[in-house]
Amino acid sequence: MPTDTTSPGAVPGSRALAHPDREEIRLADVLHALADPMRLRIVCRLAAADGELSCADIELPVSKSTCTHHYRVLRESGVIQQLYRGTAKMNGLRSADLEALFPGLIDGVLRAADRQERRLGGR
Amino acid sequence: MPTDTTSPGAVPGSRALAHPDREEIRLADVLHALADPMRLRIVCRLAAADGELSCADIELPVSKSTCTHHYRVLRESGVIQQLYRGTAKMNGLRSADLEALFPGLIDGVLRAADRQERRLGGR
Repeated sequence: MPTDTTSPGAVPGSRALAHPDREEIRLADVLHALADPMRLRIVCRLAAADGELSCADIELPVSKSTCTHHYRVLRESGVIQQLYRGTAKMNGLRSADLEALFPGLIDGVLRAADRQERRLGGR
Repeated sequence: MPTDTTSPGAVPGSRALAHPDREEIRLADVLHALADPMRLRIVCRLAAADGELSCADIELPVSKSTCTHHYRVLRESGVIQQLYRGTAKMNGLRSADLEALFPGLIDGVLRAADRQERRLGGR
């Protein structure tokens, strides 16, 4: 069952966002979530930040609604957690869950993304 | 430019299938190709076989046309090569290309798939 995640600083109730529990996370969903250049960029930034970032902290060359869509795909697949702190929606990698389920997978994908970025220079 | 791959034993000409060159392979396309349980199963089988298998060698609980679609997605993303040998369409992982572009990525995904399979028992 997906759970509404609340935590200190989050606004409980209607604004809590649904997340899959760890045991509901599936590899195919995670790979699908990562299979997009914008979503890969979000994950790279969150991994580099090693903490929470707001959506505004990560600039993407897409519309706000497309941006919202990408974050939702990442959240619903179990790759990131999102919660409201006041008016800001904060995002963080679910590193502990992903590492427990698929050790080394996210690091491997991030290394591949970095390598491609250096090879193609953003093409 | 995608190239028509021919090789010894392959029928040249109209039955050759289009493949991306190594430098055209993109991480997002590879991850999308892997983001499906049936396609993951094909890749696991090809990796375990460490050689070519025909489509008939890999049983999948889906229709023939769906099966053909999955192989096409894998081929067009650069994950597998497909060629006709006589009347059989043979499939092989493009391990050298993938390893050169994204070292360790496919192995990491295969390990994750194996881990999930053992955890869920096919669920």
